[in-house]
Amino acid sequence: MKIIKGGVTAAKGYLATGGHCGAKRKNKDLALLQSIKPAHMAAVFTTNQVKAAPVLWNKAVYDMEKDIKAIVVNSGNANACTGEQGMMDAKKMAVTTADVLNIQEEEVLVASTGVIGVPLPIDKISQGIHDLVGTMSSTLEAGNHAAHAILTTDTYTKELAVVMHIGGKEVTIGGMAKGSGMIHPNMATMLSFITTDVNITQKLFRQALAETVEDTYNMISVDGDTSTNDMVLALANGQADNPIIDCVGEDYTVFKEALHELNETLAKLIVADGEGVTKCIEVSVKGAKCKEDARLLSKSVITSNLVKTAFFGEDANWGRILCAMGYAGVTFDPNKVSLCYSSDKGTILLVDQGVPIRFSEEKASEIMSERNIGVEIVLQEGMEGAKAWGCDLSYEYVRINGEYRT
Amino acid sequence: MKIIKGGVTAAKGYLATGGHCGAKRKNKDLALLQSIKPAHMAAVFTTNQVKAAPVLWNKAVYDMEKDIKAIVVNSGNANACTGEQGMMDAKKMAVTTADVLNIQEEEVLVASTGVIGVPLPIDKISQGIHDLVGTMSSTLEAGNHAAHAILTTDTYTKELAVVMHIGGKEVTIGGMAKGSGMIHPNMATMLSFITTDVNITQKLFRQALAETVEDTYNMISVDGDTSTNDMVLALANGQADNPIIDCVGEDYTVFKEALHELNETLAKLIVADGEGVTKCIEVSVKGAKCKEDARLLSKSVITSNLVKTAFFGEDANWGRILCAMGYAGVTFDPNKVSLCYSSDKGTILLVDQGVPIRFSEEKASEIMSERNIGVEIVLQEGMEGAKAWGCDLSYEYVRINGEYRT
Repeated sequence: MKIIKGGVTAAKGYLATGGHCGAKRKNKDLALLQSIKPAHMAAVFTTNQVKAAPVLWNKAVYDMEKDIKAIVVNSGNANACTGEQGMMDAKKMAVTTADVLNIQEEEVLVASTGVIGVPLPIDKISQGIHDLVGTMSSTLEAGNHAAHAILTTDTYTKELAVVMHIGGKEVTIGGMAKGSGMIHPNMATMLSFITTDVNITQKLFRQALAETVEDTYNMISVDGDTSTNDMVLALANGQADNPIIDCVGEDYTVFKEALHELNETLAKLIVADGEGVTKCIEVSVKGAKCKEDARLLSKSVITSNLVKTAFFGEDANWGRILCAMGYAGVTFDPNKVSLCYSSDKGTILLVDQGVPIRFSEEKASEIMSERNIGVEIVLQEGMEGAKAWGCDLSYEYVRINGEYRT
Repeated sequence: MKIIKGGVTAAKGYLATGGHCGAKRKNKDLALLQSIKPAHMAAVFTTNQVKAAPVLWNKAVYDMEKDIKAIVVNSGNANACTGEQGMMDAKKMAVTTADVLNIQEEEVLVASTGVIGVPLPIDKISQGIHDLVGTMSSTLEAGNHAAHAILTTDTYTKELAVVMHIGGKEVTIGGMAKGSGMIHPNMATMLSFITTDVNITQKLFRQALAETVEDTYNMISVDGDTSTNDMVLALANGQADNPIIDCVGEDYTVFKEALHELNETLAKLIVADGEGVTKCIEVSVKGAKCKEDARLLSKSVITSNLVKTAFFGEDANWGRILCAMGYAGVTFDPNKVSLCYSSDKGTILLVDQGVPIRFSEEKASEIMSERNIGVEIVLQEGMEGAKAWGCDLSYEYVRINGEYRT
């Protein structure tokens, strides 16, 4: 498997575009994505009890198990907490896209991201769909336009593509994502769109996505808030022409590992572009009793406001890490925990099997001055491990979110 | 029941003092509290898996069900994550206090608050106990000195006393608390010390405390971090000479309601003095299926960073409230939720049974410009309700916690 240039148009048989329709004051705010052949759909949706209208539309389509031909996405407005009108608007987006592409409305998925509780400017979006359809293309540039159009307070596009060989055929997976704030995915994440030309059964495609989401998007947190609009939508149109993957074997593993790599990288890109971020933190927990314990512990650490502000202040206040582990809902012996921080400037041991080490504050400061910092936690409860990715909590996060609607 | 002046020395038979021993660079950092008669002890401790040494000491004493004669508290150092040495230091605090007061070490409770993971300056504290014991007094001023000595980044003391009549006798409850950061109590809270002269059985005293903690300290949050040192310690020495409360009847109810009032007020004082706070927010949920649902929903709202930053920015971005309710782990119908904000400047309806109201931004800004803001959420799931108290998330919170150890 290797990483190549491109995003959602990297795989064979996908067209995309992105432009401005007026849902945001300026910048691109509308993306269209089309598969030239019907594509199997895999998806993971937010577990938030309050689900945005497009999430509900897509869940209904997902349950029909039909193949998909297009996705339409707007930014600037989340179409969440918008009641009956919101449901009608989400459907209108699908119907309009189906009309201009001459397909069925049940073959169209819909996504929205932006402010909550404000009616969608559906007329502008419908007009935008008509205006944009002629610009759809399979170039990498077209994919990049789409990646631009799904952003909100993100500061850069998040695209990636990987290629591998399956049954002698070149198989490609491409993806684009957006993140920024309200990032604490639970069984799903922000908006992420994956396109692949792999030939695979719908069942295994859905299984591969679900399995990789658990250890990628679900292990990042920017601010502990699980959004109403979280979704990963993935399409597989079979254009790579590989022998169909219809059992869990070597081919499935090659594909799943490539998908995992793509999703982990997109998830990390979301964290790196978190609102107000100045530090990216990878928390690795080893020696846990079970995988779930390791996940809970690592995620509790990256979600703690006190841990996050300490990293912002470049302060090796490691007690807050143990405190956050302590309320993760996991049983462990604090007297057997070892803890170290590392970055490109080196590694420093802070706690050795429960005993605090008298460490050099100078060395610790040097390590923490880097943008990327690793926290390694070793328990003595078992053999399982997990990684989680988060960021610091800065003045800028507070500023962005105190002024979001203005 | 009425509120009177004073704190932990308001009830009959309690002495206190507070002074400086050097655990902090300056300011008072050591408090002593004594009951002239053995007092029943009630307590609630942190549920954090990582428990500070003094919490472990007190739990052991609690389980012995012996009566208590003294409490010693230091600020400036939490004696948490300090291993074996920490346990020995906590014991040393109890032993030294027992020595100077000529009582048993098992009659002494210990509390510490401050930085985590640094060995306690036990020699300074021991010397301080010797120095301070001669200054103990039953005056309200002495109680205030103790209230000063338990503070960390708090900006003012938190004291309260209430008086009621039980069986023709005047019964008093006094208390002092400290809060500030790492405030998200779970089955316990920050440090809070309650003294009462009520005559009550140990069993009912413990029951009354446990019941009131659930709806007071456990319903506040400053930053979502549950501390390693959270404790409410309560003493009842019987000096009011009321007929003993030994069953759940009218006397018990009078006492419990007074205790509830005291604890709710202390809890709100902790929030009002939260790190960097500019707004105090009361979230009231009504019409929930059960009490636990109402608690989870209200607490999820006040814990959300996005809700908190919106209040800091005085932005009526109410969608974030529904979003935070959505991930609280409670089943409810978002289409039946009503929501309004209120303050001394008036009330504004934002959502009416799931339908967003086109509201005046001007009016909303005016209401949100106040320091105290109420959020009322009405469901249509049942008849239960709960209140939670929290604060906004400001630049100042980030500054304080980025620089805590320096």
